[in-house]
Order: sequence, then C-alpha cells, then structure tokens
Amino acid sequence: MAIIMGDNQYGKAENRVVRIYRDTARHEIRDLNVSTALRGPFADAHLTGDNTQLLTTDAQKNTAFAFAKLHGIGAIEDYALTLARHFVHDVEPVTGARIEVEEYAWDRATIEGIEHDHTWTRRGPEVRTAAVTVDASGEHVIGGIKDLVLLKSTGSEFHSFLTDEFTTLPEVDDRIMATALVAKWRFAGVPEDWDSTYTLVKSLIIREFATLQSLSLQQTLWAIGKAILEAVPAIAEIRLSAPNKHHFTVDLAPFGLENPNEVFIAADRPYGLIQATVTRDDAPPAGEAWRSAAGLA
Amino acid sequence: MAIIMGDNQYGKAENRVVRIYRDTARHEIRDLNVSTALRGPFADAHLTGDNTQLLTTDAQKNTAFAFAKLHGIGAIEDYALTLARHFVHDVEPVTGARIEVEEYAWDRATIEGIEHDHTWTRRGPEVRTAAVTVDASGEHVIGGIKDLVLLKSTGSEFHSFLTDEFTTLPEVDDRIMATALVAKWRFAGVPEDWDSTYTLVKSLIIREFATLQSLSLQQTLWAIGKAILEAVPAIAEIRLSAPNKHHFTVDLAPFGLENPNEVFIAADRPYGLIQATVTRDDAPPAGEAWRSAAGLA
Amino acid sequence: MAIIMGDNQYGKAENRVVRIYRDTARHEIRDLNVSTALRGPFADAHLTGDNTQLLTTDAQKNTAFAFAKLHGIGAIEDYALTLARHFVHDVEPVTGARIEVEEYAWDRATIEGIEHDHTWTRRGPEVRTAAVTVDASGEHVIGGIKDLVLLKSTGSEFHSFLTDEFTTLPEVDDRIMATALVAKWRFAGVPEDWDSTYTLVKSLIIREFATLQSLSLQQTLWAIGKAILEAVPAIAEIRLSAPNKHHFTVDLAPFGLENPNEVFIAADRPYGLIQATVTRDDAPPAGEAWRSAAGLA
Amino acid sequence: MAIIMGDNQYGKAENRVVRIYRDTARHEIRDLNVSTALRGPFADAHLTGDNTQLLTTDAQKNTAFAFAKLHGIGAIEDYALTLARHFVHDVEPVTGARIEVEEYAWDRATIEGIEHDHTWTRRGPEVRTAAVTVDASGEHVIGGIKDLVLLKSTGSEFHSFLTDEFTTLPEVDDRIMATALVAKWRFAGVPEDWDSTYTLVKSLIIREFATLQSLSLQQTLWAIGKAILEAVPAIAEIRLSAPNKHHFTVDLAPFGLENPNEVFIAADRPYGLIQATVTRDDAPPAGEAWRSAAGLA
Repeated sequence: MAIIMGDNQYGKAENRVVRIYRDTARHEIRDLNVSTALRGPFADAHLTGDNTQLLTTDAQKNTAFAFAKLHGIGAIEDYALTLARHFVHDVEPVTGARIEVEEYAWDRATIEGIEHDHTWTRRGPEVRTAAVTVDASGEHVIGGIKDLVLLKSTGSEFHSFLTDEFTTLPEVDDRIMATALVAKWRFAGVPEDWDSTYTLVKSLIIREFATLQSLSLQQTLWAIGKAILEAVPAIAEIRLSAPNKHHFTVDLAPFGLENPNEVFIAADRPYGLIQATVTRDDAPPAGEAWRSAAGLA
Repeated sequence: MAIIMGDNQYGKAENRVVRIYRDTARHEIRDLNVSTALRGPFADAHLTGDNTQLLTTDAQKNTAFAFAKLHGIGAIEDYALTLARHFVHDVEPVTGARIEVEEYAWDRATIEGIEHDHTWTRRGPEVRTAAVTVDASGEHVIGGIKDLVLLKSTGSEFHSFLTDEFTTLPEVDDRIMATALVAKWRFAGVPEDWDSTYTLVKSLIIREFATLQSLSLQQTLWAIGKAILEAVPAIAEIRLSAPNKHHFTVDLAPFGLENPNEVFIAADRPYGLIQATVTRDDAPPAGEAWRSAAGLA
Repeated sequence: MAIIMGDNQYGKAENRVVRIYRDTARHEIRDLNVSTALRGPFADAHLTGDNTQLLTTDAQKNTAFAFAKLHGIGAIEDYALTLARHFVHDVEPVTGARIEVEEYAWDRATIEGIEHDHTWTRRGPEVRTAAVTVDASGEHVIGGIKDLVLLKSTGSEFHSFLTDEFTTLPEVDDRIMATALVAKWRFAGVPEDWDSTYTLVKSLIIREFATLQSLSLQQTLWAIGKAILEAVPAIAEIRLSAPNKHHFTVDLAPFGLENPNEVFIAADRPYGLIQATVTRDDAPPAGEAWRSAAGLA
Repeated sequence: MAIIMGDNQYGKAENRVVRIYRDTARHEIRDLNVSTALRGPFADAHLTGDNTQLLTTDAQKNTAFAFAKLHGIGAIEDYALTLARHFVHDVEPVTGARIEVEEYAWDRATIEGIEHDHTWTRRGPEVRTAAVTVDASGEHVIGGIKDLVLLKSTGSEFHSFLTDEFTTLPEVDDRIMATALVAKWRFAGVPEDWDSTYTLVKSLIIREFATLQSLSLQQTLWAIGKAILEAVPAIAEIRLSAPNKHHFTVDLAPFGLENPNEVFIAADRPYGLIQATVTRDDAPPAGEAWRSAAGLA
C-alpha cells in the first residue's frame, strides 16, 4: 500500500473583470467574476515542491484581464472557451482547464425617458453563469443561472403525499410557492447564439413556473426542464436545484381574524431542497465536467 | 456616584411580513422586513427583573402580522405609522415606538408579452426603507433607499486635491464612478403620496448621478441632495452615504497592450466612504429619531 | 429658504492592516480592519468640486499602513488615537477625525504541547472594536466587543409580563438564553492598560451572563453593565445590544416523546432585540462621538 | 429521442438541531445544522404530480428532531448514519438517503478559574462536517472540517515557477501563507472513535501546516494529506481545498520606510484556490457519494 496523489487542480478564483466598450458615445458594460483552474502534471509540485511546471495563479489572473482587452468580452461562454483553449493549447504542461464565470446584469439608466449613454443601475439578484472545461476529451460548455427568485401567490397545491409516524404536515390546495432557482444546462452542441439562448431559457423557466397548476415543486421542475429541452436542441441535459422558500400562513385566529392566504411569514431555515435532472434518452455521455459542475450532492 | 439605567428600548427585529392582495384574479404583493422597538418605564425590568410593564416581543411580532390583515399594507411609511401609533396610544406603559421597515421589490412576470396575474420575480438589489418614531415629541418619518448600485463609465474626474507626505494617488480626468448608495430623507411634512415620492426621489438620484460631470463623489452627493430638496417640499433634510466602489484600470503594459479605460478590476476593500447631509436653512430641528437613524458615525 | 450643506465626513473604510512582529523567532500578529473618516472645511468640495482641501482617501489608507510600521500596533485604542491625532494635528484643514478599528483574534498553534513560533489559527467569532474621535472638543475613546455568542441552557426564566390582545406567548420558568452580544463602552479617563481592560470587561460579561438567575434579557444586561462600571472606574457608560437568539423547544408529543428542554430548534428570524445603556449619575456629557457610535436606533 | 427524468433527490436543508444533555447539573450541548436528502422511485412525482411515494420534507425535519431525543446526538457521523438508515430501511419507497451535518463548537465558560455547568461561548470559525450516504451500494461516511483559518508569518517560499508572457509575479523566499481550509476525508472502515479521529485529523492539519518549510501551498496540502493517511488507517482518501488568502507586503518606500515583511494588506479577491486529493493506491472505489461530496469542480 502506498499513499499517492489523486485528482488536483489550482487556479485564481473570483477575478472581478469589468469591460467597458467605449468606441462610441454609447458605452457598453460586461461585468464578470472569473475563476480559472488548471490540470496537468503537477504531482511534483505537491510531492517535492518542484514548481517548474506551475503557471502561477497570478499569471492566470493577468491572462483573464489581458484577454478582456485582446479578445473582448461577448457571451461569457465564448470568453471562457477562449481562456480555456489558451491555457490548454498555449501553456505547455497544462492538459485541462476549467473556467467558471458569473455575469452581473446592469440596466441602462433612463433619464426622463431617454436611455443614458454611460450610466447603469445593477439589476439582480439573478446571476448568469457559465462553466467551460477543455481537456483531452474535448470542449464542454455548461450554461446556467443562479439566484433567480420566483414567487407565485396561488396555483400551487401539495397533498396526497406519503405519510409515516413522523408526518404532521396538513394537506393544502392553495399555497405560496417561492424559490431561488439554480439551473445548469449542458450543451451537446453549439447553439446559434449563446446570449439569446440564455434569454430564451430564462423566459421558459419563468413561463413554466407561472403557468403550471403545480402539485409539487418536483412537478414544476420537470415542466421547466422539459420545456427547455423541447425548445433548445443544443442542450442535452439540465439540472435544477430549487430551495422551497416556505411562506407560512400566519394563524390570526387568536386575534379574531381570518387569514384566507393573505398574510404570510417568510421563513429562512430550514427549507425544502428539491433537485432534479431532466435529460434526453440519447444524450451523449456527460463526463466529469458535468458531474463536478452539477453538485447533485 | 451611583450607577443608573440610561436609554433603553426593546422589540422584535426582522419580522418577514408578506401580504398578498387577492381580491381579484390579479394579485398584488408587498414584501416587508419589519422591526419594532418600544420605549417607556422599563427601568424595573432591568433592575429587578419585574416584567409587568413589558409587552413581549412576541406580542409585538403578532401585532405586526395582525395589522397586515387589519389595516393592510400600503406605503411602508403608513404601515409603520399605524403600528407605532398603536403601541404608543393603545399599550398603556409605552411612551415611544420606533418602527423600521425594509421593502423588497418584485417585478410582475411577463409571459409572452402579457403580465401574469400571480407570479413575480424578485428585483434587486436596492431596498426601500422607512423608519418611523412616535413619541411625546410627535411623529417623525424617515424615508430611504439602500443598496442602490450605480455605475458610470465616464463623466467622472478626480484631481487638484490636497497632498501630504502620504499621498501617492495620481490625478485622473476620466474614471469609473460606482457606488451602492444609502440615502435617508427626513420628512418635515406629509407629502401627497409616499409611494410616488419614493419613485421621484429614486429617479432624481439616478438623474444627478448620471448627468453631472463629477469632480468628486462629494460633488455628486450634493447635486443629488439639492435636486431632491428642490423637488420635494415635504423633505427637510437628506443624508447620503456612498461607498466609492473602486474600479482600477488594469495595467496591461507588461503584455504590450494599451488600456484606455476599457479593462478594470472591481475592488472589494478598502473602499472610500463619503457621507454628506444636505439640508434647508429653515429646517425644523431634527430630534433624536434622525440622529440615531442617520448613523453619520 | 436656502439649501445648505450639513454634517459631512469622508474616509477610507475597511483597510485590512496586518502587522507581524518578527524581532525574535517568536513572532506576534495583530490583525485589524481600520476605517478612517475626516471632518473639516469641505463644503466647497461638495458645492463646486473644489478638492484643494481634500486629503485623498488613498492617502488616508497609506497613512494607516505606514503608521503600522512607524508607530507599530499595540492596543487598538492607542493605534487609533495616534492616527486620529495625526490627521487633526498634522493635516492643515482637518478639524476632526474618527477612526474605527476591529481586531480579529488569533490563537497560537500548539504542536504536541509546544507553542509554535509563527503559526496561528483564527479564533472567533467575537471581534474587539474601538472607535476614537479627536476634534476640538477633545479626545473620545470607545472600546467594544461584537459578535460574542453566549448560550446558557438553564438559569433563565420569562414570565409575569404585560399582556394585551395580541399576546399569546406562554410563560416559562426555564429556557435557553442565547445572544450575540454587541457592547460599546465610553472611557471618561485613560485606564492603566487598554488590553487588560478589554480582557477584564469580556470576562465580566461572561460571568454575569452565566451566573445571574435571569428573569429577562433586560435584567442580564443591567447586571453586565453594572459589574463593568463597578470594576472599571475609567469607563463612564456602556451600551449593550443583545439579539435574543430564540431556541424553541420542539414539540415531540405527536411522536409520543417528551421533551423536557432537551431538543431545540435554533431560529434565525425574527429575533428579540434588547438594547440598554448603563451609566453613572455623574458621567461627563457624552457628545456626538458616543451618540453616533452607539446607534441606539 | 425522448425527454426523461435523470438523477433527482429532495429533502429538508439546514435544520438547526440543538441538543442539551441535562441529566446532571453539568450540562452538555451539541449544536448541529442537519440537511437530509432522499432518493427513490420519485419519477411520477415529477411527471404527473403523483405525490404518493413522497415522504414530505416536513416529516424529514420532524425525524431529525425526534431522533435527537430518541437516539441522542453523539458523534455527528453516528447521528447521520442512524438517520440515513432509518429513511432507507423504514420508509418503504426510499432507496437512498444522504445526510449532511455541520457541527458548531462551543467552549465551556470559565468563571474565575472554574468551569461553568451550563454556559458556553461559541468557538469558531471552523466547523466540523459529516456527509453520510446509505443506499444499495452500502454505507458511505465522509468526515470533514471547513473554514479552518490558518496563518503562518514565515516558513513559506514561492519561486522557481513556470513563466509565460503573462507572468509578472516576483519570486519570494519568505511570505505569509494563510488559508481557510476545507477538508473532507472518506472512511473505508469504521475508526475506533469518530470524535477522537476528528480531533486527531485537525491536529495533524495544523502540525503539517506549521512545520513544513513550504515551497508552495500544493506541497503543504500533500504533507497534510499524507500525514493523515499515515495516522488513520480507516481513512482511504482526503480532499483538500485551500484558498490562498493573499497577504501582500505593502510598499512603504514612497514614505521612506522599509518593510521587511512586517506590514501586510490582507486581500479579499481574487484568491488562489488550490485543490488536491491524497489517496491510497489500494483504496476501494469511491462511488458517487464521494464524487458529489467533494466538489472538485
């Protein structure tokens, strides 16, 4: 029996790269949080402190910023692919690179009905995400969204569930359903346009959440996943993680008041957590990039 | 010399009150975080553990939820006033009440161009705030906004400043200016409409931030404060607290690249912090409510 | 009626200053978060963008770091006083300075029973604080602690309280009492030693919290404040802010189980918030520094 | 081509279970954050909203609390195993359960040299973790620690690294090394005692971090992993994730001051992120539980 090195990677996390386009008076902004990670023959760095194969995390950071100038920042999937390819193809010992990007959205300010050339307000809380892996097995692109907070004040039921000796929950046929959705979708091909694909996926999430008369959060997640796979052939698979942000109807009876689903207390913890994958029966195999990204823990 | 009780108050903090209006198929939502604090003859509770004058914080919580049904939730200033008056007028020993409210904004979901009746997405990050104090000195209302994140990619200069032996900052005539603004405004009268006043103040903040060719964040704060006082006679005074969220131009020269204000690193800490009060020379005296609310620390 | 500038200040917030003493093989560490704020004749900076009286926040940052070398970092009260005096006495237009410091504690690592010379683990969660103001009215020092999380599993009662129509809370004669205490104490004089005073105050807080058979959190705060004022003549006044971190006894009766205060759910929000000042009848007047620091909102 | 359900699970996250032992005057406390997740034949819940196989997340919560009474809380690995076995063995449709636990440490208060019977202060910031999976493949236990913040003020070098056209980092032979370590270790067998194993692993982490003259954070991680596998036969594999919390030497030369590694600025972002697995060449295969827990993303 011997003790050996297993999987390892290293990089620079959370580089806050902001790119302004100012070629005309009407500026554009892309505001990113970029994390890089490299894989390769780094065992000796661990075993003996031999750093001769290590590209510093500082150089990785410099590259992320330099590429924002050299290649610009369009769709975050493209930016991440360009960075990952560079590390794998141009830096000798590197055999794999994983780039994770978050993009923060800004709304252009409108002053007395006219869009302003160079001022924005931060929109939120939702964040667009991308995770790209390039290695010997190919190029893997995962799009995503996180912290998309959704609430519907009716159109959600929960009843007819399994009971055991620890079950005390009453059945309800009308409740608030709310979540802060995290979704990641695996591309099997390259869509026509990354940005419009993101916009479409987001709109489908909201549509299905809103319009399904839901019997459970599980059913809503399936509806969302199915709608996305039907609409976007380039997406092979989608993973959804949905905290059930409980809104409990407050008991006002002690004060002589009825509460027909009008007054709620929004609870923090604990929360339900529903996680589901919707896929295709002919989806190409997922590989490590998807497994590690998805975190179906 | 004797040791004595000084100022004290107690209450229930961060009640997450959600109110749904469902009288028609088109629902409405108001989503609040409510904190109450009561003042009065509570010395004995401290000195001897005599609780007979203490309304429990649990009862304060119940009141916040019950009032969401009994009186509904319109403008948060009105809701807070109603709660504060109740505690002072209806609960015998209470002589003063301070109610603080945060309101989270929701955007109605739009499905294929049509507004949905009962589904929303959370808007952010900015939060509307109100702090109301009712006591023997009268009723004091403070409106506010926090975490309004603003960025302009040009139209901001900083130069011609004082220098000392620790000054190394270069002068710049073009920089990114960004902040997460916190503003609190003190009402000397009751405006025609709390909600439209809030909307107006917010739009003036954005207008002044965007349109002033700024020589310092200080100058921008003054412009914002002045515009608000000119537009809203009911506001006596406004306090602004603005972190200068630094965006540093990245030095790309080592890589043979120019960077004419196109690539920035957004820094977390330290940050500048600029705080200013804009007032009227005939403003009525502020009182304790304003001093403790404003936190010009 | 004219619109005019009111109170204002500006500075650099959250400078993360780490000072290592390495004069011998046994190193020492002091790990601070330092915020500076200056006051003075800065109206023109606001009104016209005239920056000629403004010492940059960048220079303030440089000063905080340079002083860590020039003067070293001993007790944070001393470090803050030295910085504040410099800004007021050495920088021509500055008339007032306020320095706020947080100190993070580190435990020296012990390896097989022997203290290590240069390795530490972070202790937490409590943080030592200081706020110093120097201006024409003199020098004002406020010591403090925050996020001191305390819990006692018995020795706390709550009953015999005032009831109204919104009261539903049952009386209890045995409960968990837990808080994350924030305390600030105002010095009227200079104690023999800042560091040992801090240690003493912290130990008195814990002693009183533990040993008082408490009838309310209010009573516990008074006991804490009184013990500190009795023990430390240099402290004129202390303000305590204590969230009541509720631990609710879980109802296990539906499962045929008793729960004699053994199983609790720790709740996040809402929480009680109890705030009290304990002072001396001959305490010198507090001044603005104390009012703005204490935030008895 | 058809759209189908993939992996899914659901449960109740972040149940804050606090257990007090009060059989004698000297109480004991265990303070947990418990998350449950169940797997099984839940496709119909998604596809058609048929909930008849779903044990509610509310019942899972009730079980977590009831078991704190029924079976008590000893080592968190045991508590999690008991919960997981119950769900798989006693709840008919459930085929797999994953229980994640965080444990918060408390220090018993000492009053004038004597340990107090029922009062504690929260220790931190480090948190003990456990993740247990029970399914058809067996029982899988993963121990861990997170947010163990370590700093050494010397004994760390970084030089002789690979350079490319984006490399500007200077070599250093003496620097601060600091991290907030996350470690997870996979048990292949059952150790004699879960609690003492945790204590041993934590002490080995600190020992190796402190005593290795480190040429890179990678080398330190290897030393930590190796020491643990040598000392604990029941551990098959360990994964370490270490943010490199940069402490940059401040340039004081503009102020005529030297800075021989005495004054540092602690940076927030970006940070290096070094991740490594240390394993045995004869370790049994890891399975899905380990892959999803480790998040080597």
